[in-house]
Amino acid sequence: MQLGVIGLGRMGADLVRRLERHGHQCVVHDILPAAIEALEQEGAVGASSIDAMMSRLKAPRILWLMLPAAAVEAALGDLKPRLSPGDIVIDGGNSYYRDDVRRSVELSAMGVHFIDVGTSGGTAGLERGYCLMIGGEEDVVVYLAPIFSALSTGANGASEVQAGDTSRAIGHAADVEGSTAEFGYLYCGLHGAGHFVKMIHNGIEYGMMAAYVEGLNILKEANIGTHRHDADADAESTPLRHPEYYQYTFPLAEIAEVWRHGSVIESWLLGRIADALHADPTLAAFAGRVSDSGEGRWSVQAAIDEAVPVPVLSAALYARFSSRGQAGFADQLLSAMRHEFGGHAEVAAPVSHPPQAAVHAIDKGERHRPFPDGANDDRAT
Amino acid sequence: MQLGVIGLGRMGADLVRRLERHGHQCVVHDILPAAIEALEQEGAVGASSIDAMMSRLKAPRILWLMLPAAAVEAALGDLKPRLSPGDIVIDGGNSYYRDDVRRSVELSAMGVHFIDVGTSGGTAGLERGYCLMIGGEEDVVVYLAPIFSALSTGANGASEVQAGDTSRAIGHAADVEGSTAEFGYLYCGLHGAGHFVKMIHNGIEYGMMAAYVEGLNILKEANIGTHRHDADADAESTPLRHPEYYQYTFPLAEIAEVWRHGSVIESWLLGRIADALHADPTLAAFAGRVSDSGEGRWSVQAAIDEAVPVPVLSAALYARFSSRGQAGFADQLLSAMRHEFGGHAEVAAPVSHPPQAAVHAIDKGERHRPFPDGANDDRAT
Amino acid sequence: MQLGVIGLGRMGADLVRRLERHGHQCVVHDILPAAIEALEQEGAVGASSIDAMMSRLKAPRILWLMLPAAAVEAALGDLKPRLSPGDIVIDGGNSYYRDDVRRSVELSAMGVHFIDVGTSGGTAGLERGYCLMIGGEEDVVVYLAPIFSALSTGANGASEVQAGDTSRAIGHAADVEGSTAEFGYLYCGLHGAGHFVKMIHNGIEYGMMAAYVEGLNILKEANIGTHRHDADADAESTPLRHPEYYQYTFPLAEIAEVWRHGSVIESWLLGRIADALHADPTLAAFAGRVSDSGEGRWSVQAAIDEAVPVPVLSAALYARFSSRGQAGFADQLLSAMRHEFGGHAEVAAPVSHPPQAAVHAIDKGERHRPFPDGANDDRAT
Amino acid sequence: MQLGVIGLGRMGADLVRRLERHGHQCVVHDILPAAIEALEQEGAVGASSIDAMMSRLKAPRILWLMLPAAAVEAALGDLKPRLSPGDIVIDGGNSYYRDDVRRSVELSAMGVHFIDVGTSGGTAGLERGYCLMIGGEEDVVVYLAPIFSALSTGANGASEVQAGDTSRAIGHAADVEGSTAEFGYLYCGLHGAGHFVKMIHNGIEYGMMAAYVEGLNILKEANIGTHRHDADADAESTPLRHPEYYQYTFPLAEIAEVWRHGSVIESWLLGRIADALHADPTLAAFAGRVSDSGEGRWSVQAAIDEAVPVPVLSAALYARFSSRGQAGFADQLLSAMRHEFGGHAEVAAPVSHPPQAAVHAIDKGERHRPFPDGANDDRAT
Repeated sequence: MQLGVIGLGRMGADLVRRLERHGHQCVVHDILPAAIEALEQEGAVGASSIDAMMSRLKAPRILWLMLPAAAVEAALGDLKPRLSPGDIVIDGGNSYYRDDVRRSVELSAMGVHFIDVGTSGGTAGLERGYCLMIGGEEDVVVYLAPIFSALSTGANGASEVQAGDTSRAIGHAADVEGSTAEFGYLYCGLHGAGHFVKMIHNGIEYGMMAAYVEGLNILKEANIGTHRHDADADAESTPLRHPEYYQYTFPLAEIAEVWRHGSVIESWLLGRIADALHADPTLAAFAGRVSDSGEGRWSVQAAIDEAVPVPVLSAALYARFSSRGQAGFADQLLSAMRHEFGGHAEVAAPVSHPPQAAVHAIDKGERHRPFPDGANDDRAT
Repeated sequence: MQLGVIGLGRMGADLVRRLERHGHQCVVHDILPAAIEALEQEGAVGASSIDAMMSRLKAPRILWLMLPAAAVEAALGDLKPRLSPGDIVIDGGNSYYRDDVRRSVELSAMGVHFIDVGTSGGTAGLERGYCLMIGGEEDVVVYLAPIFSALSTGANGASEVQAGDTSRAIGHAADVEGSTAEFGYLYCGLHGAGHFVKMIHNGIEYGMMAAYVEGLNILKEANIGTHRHDADADAESTPLRHPEYYQYTFPLAEIAEVWRHGSVIESWLLGRIADALHADPTLAAFAGRVSDSGEGRWSVQAAIDEAVPVPVLSAALYARFSSRGQAGFADQLLSAMRHEFGGHAEVAAPVSHPPQAAVHAIDKGERHRPFPDGANDDRAT
Repeated sequence: MQLGVIGLGRMGADLVRRLERHGHQCVVHDILPAAIEALEQEGAVGASSIDAMMSRLKAPRILWLMLPAAAVEAALGDLKPRLSPGDIVIDGGNSYYRDDVRRSVELSAMGVHFIDVGTSGGTAGLERGYCLMIGGEEDVVVYLAPIFSALSTGANGASEVQAGDTSRAIGHAADVEGSTAEFGYLYCGLHGAGHFVKMIHNGIEYGMMAAYVEGLNILKEANIGTHRHDADADAESTPLRHPEYYQYTFPLAEIAEVWRHGSVIESWLLGRIADALHADPTLAAFAGRVSDSGEGRWSVQAAIDEAVPVPVLSAALYARFSSRGQAGFADQLLSAMRHEFGGHAEVAAPVSHPPQAAVHAIDKGERHRPFPDGANDDRAT
Repeated sequence: MQLGVIGLGRMGADLVRRLERHGHQCVVHDILPAAIEALEQEGAVGASSIDAMMSRLKAPRILWLMLPAAAVEAALGDLKPRLSPGDIVIDGGNSYYRDDVRRSVELSAMGVHFIDVGTSGGTAGLERGYCLMIGGEEDVVVYLAPIFSALSTGANGASEVQAGDTSRAIGHAADVEGSTAEFGYLYCGLHGAGHFVKMIHNGIEYGMMAAYVEGLNILKEANIGTHRHDADADAESTPLRHPEYYQYTFPLAEIAEVWRHGSVIESWLLGRIADALHADPTLAAFAGRVSDSGEGRWSVQAAIDEAVPVPVLSAALYARFSSRGQAGFADQLLSAMRHEFGGHAEVAAPVSHPPQAAVHAIDKGERHRPFPDGANDDRAT
């Protein structure tokens, strides 16, 4: 099929490449001319303006927007006067599903179809195929099936869907095996359904990522008994009661790797952790200011509207806020309160831990601190 | 190699089967004679008593315990008088790593080696191979490599390690590729290191599971706008401001399935969710009283000892406690307080939601409640 | 001053009573005639209809709405055609501050002033005085000062503000002592500021309530060592390692009471806990289905918009959701996953704990289970 | 009564002062001679050594330890050889209740009584009186009642208990009014019960403090709409959809103050917040590195042992860990993962917010950004 793609960033450019590989023809546009030229050299048809793009697309036109959520409204504003009845606009980015609902109403009044597609897969999607969560009018989604099929994982095998092939229901089937879910794309419901499901997908992603990094942080600090002793304790803190149980210097990169082979917590994200720790166990390139995009926030807000408890998804989101210093005033006020009621002074930041590189060096020799005879008791001494 | 296996439950029996398939010889014992007989018929050597087992094992004996954590102490008590210097005892269950430390000291005094192995993989491990996290003396772990290799995923490919093969470091290597991590087993450090890493593995597992089920619960309730209207609101609750945005009846089983194909949240656990929802989307066989074993609790306790924040791992653990009614008194007291200060009466449980089966039926027709013109505003009406 | 009060529920009726006691004249209306009559007998002027009320109020009219949030929009719809320029409408209920912003714009176009007042104090406010958080145009708030002064705690002492008294700034002053904050009412800013501050107030209230009930729940279960022994442990759960440390049967009502006298956690809410436990330590009248009104939800949503981490406020909100069974599907799915990957069966609900009444009976005799000699070690046995 | 007090820090010195004021005689010791001298000048009897103290106390001796938890074991080691049967040792600090259990067994073998007292009240306790939570043998606690009575709040009124006065049960009574709870001290149960209740008290304190500071942090950031606009949005973050709803610059110190007068969230801790914000609304003296002592941690560990869900108490504890940078590695790993799977770069720290002083300046003028006509819609633009 022929389609126009607007937005040639990381995700948009790879999308075009994968579509071209599977025989679809892309007319491409971006505000950066260099992005257009790069794809022209790979076989796509460049369009230096929206007008140029529209003139090169046959009716009914199919337009795929791959833009930051904040840029979609302006792009639609540019497109609207140039659209004709029967045209199809696909928003494949991370828009808020409520915007889809509104936009579908506005475009529907013009006879234009609006489809929302949540696209997951990251930079690996070019080779692996993407996972597509789709909302809108079902017959339009059926019409676009060859495009979704080419983009998704099924196209890597023998299962690529041809135009008109209806052997699998794109949405709900009598049986999961009867649906396209196994090919990596799914019709999820009416307008907004695709981005709603993608929103929750990202909320879950935040929670999973947080579970892994919390666990690995415990492993990293498991040598606390080698450098924090009772002598550190003062009136402001409690001593570590059992330093003999925290003498481990774990090889984090290899632990992440071994978990990828047969464990219950094997996942694609775990592979990214293993890659990151393998590339640099010190993670020195990262300060730890973690961004959050809208989906994590919207997931929590949807949960609250529905009265669904989501402690894990929320905790993961807040950890990102805190990583950017957003708890600072609250923390200051806690210290100030402690000073008010107990005369407690803040304890200065400690001399930094042993360098991160040490984390990677497994202790193969003797335990640093011999295990004392009475180590199993609970004494503070 | 020849080894004795004590404890032939789900995990123990499969362990024996996998070892036998890869050429190792197992002498097996359980308190249930039927469990012994079943494995005898599959080729293992049965032992109706500990004494019988010990006499059939060549020195130095290798003994693998696969028992509930609470049963290990008694089993070791039975074994101790029968062990000889040089024997090796492996605890492959879910013991607390602190017990490993103590037990290793006790056995070491007798000249017996103690190895702790965290075993992950569940019932799928028989075919897929297990992920093994190993602690103890490194040279003993090297000696046992053929056993670990046979049990782990590497044995499914060309990478099975032969006795004496040292092409891969069992623990830390200059490079991840140089270690056995890619084969599915890893030497993690001195006594207790294997169960420590397994403990954290399970803590992470709880967090991941919670992330998925929270997200899917939001999807399940996304039709709240079809059955909860402003008329439901009373002085005790707030109306849903935007019922028009909660009109989705999502096909949960297929969504779980599509996420398995190319998405960022693909994982082995997600496969189990897809299986469970596919088997019965109503989950009618489950009341939702979720057990927790020790590892999730111990993970949080280790985090607190180390002053590592683990909001996600904790929230996942607490959700399990709450699922078993453990917040009941706290909830009663909240209601009582509300009554005391505001005269608020408890609202009775609502008439139950539409039957769960309806969750599976995607709405392909018209939106139940037409999207009103002014639906984007924030009015409560 | 003279004012009309619409909505004579618990809060509205007490508000009228307190205003009348301090010399203000109230014209009162409610949809329930009995509510009007009750206050007529206490000296208020009844109005059986909005028209009757409007005709009895001198211009510029002051109208105080004390209605459930969901009823305000309709009430304003009734009022609007009857309002004249210069009239003042006060919403003293728990409206969403965003509605205030919109409503103030709508009324302002008619020349009508809109004031939002967050009112805290519960049923105790009649005697103790209320805490008032006020938003809107500052000069209108100054004009209404005698009303706010009468309602708030300051009126119980010598500090009642007379009309025209400007000795204290109603809002920000050079010094806290120069403001009306110490009298129990405060101008917080433009339209919506009063309900915004009240929203956060309620969010904090949820968090505080949760902190108390969680802590008291730990105290209640501190006798777990007397009825849960190692013999309870099975493959699905971990034994309690130290039953000897959980032998306490605490007198909860008296503990709540003692904390009210000199402790750091003394508070008005703690008084309500002490009252509730004193009235019935078994709390048998409460099932523990805890309602939440809008403010707790809106607080979290505001935090997310602002990227402010609020783990405590969220956890408190989710505990209320869970108390009403809203985690049910998620819990079922957790059990189903455990069954899929490990063959774990759900454990049935245990035989119920000793009756609640026992909680109140402190153990003055011997410890049920003698403290063993080796009790300080960490053994599971 | 006569008693020896060891440990003359903030709490110990005030304890001595209050005891002396109520007619008790204190023999005092500290490792700092200056601390002894200061109290000698106020009437106490100084003892420059433990031996000197022991010789000055009449049998049976009463010894009150007021030491950091980590120093108690050594102090008891010094005392033990000098104690005689019938002597009473009171630990009034923040020891772990499990240590009490062990110590009571050890001292009991010598015929010495051990009493654990959780002491709450902070620096305000000298004037206000302390709240005392007491564990140990009940008859010993009854014997010590005059001391407890003098220290607690009851002594400020007419209710001071005289030696031998048994008009109130020190522990459980038929009625709360019949117990000493209203005087501010309570017998909570056998050894460890006092520190157990104090431990939970502190856990609750952490939760309450967190609830307040989270809420106030939301109020502080409520002006985010004045300085964060859509133009800030990039592919890494979501725009603020409704800046017009976040235009408030709240007077935090006065809000804390007004809540102290009639609101539901009035508390002693809130007074400390008001004091701190009044002293310096910028809190410039505090970096926000918040210490935690042992009780918060032990509370969570007890909850986990009991399977009691404590999301709020845990979240409060973790916020303190995070305030000290303890999530750093986890945050780095999150950023590294995002880079791995999506090519996301970390966003640099923003130019700092308007100076904190501005927080205190309420906006009395026009809203910075006029409220647009269509502000109620949900558009991102």
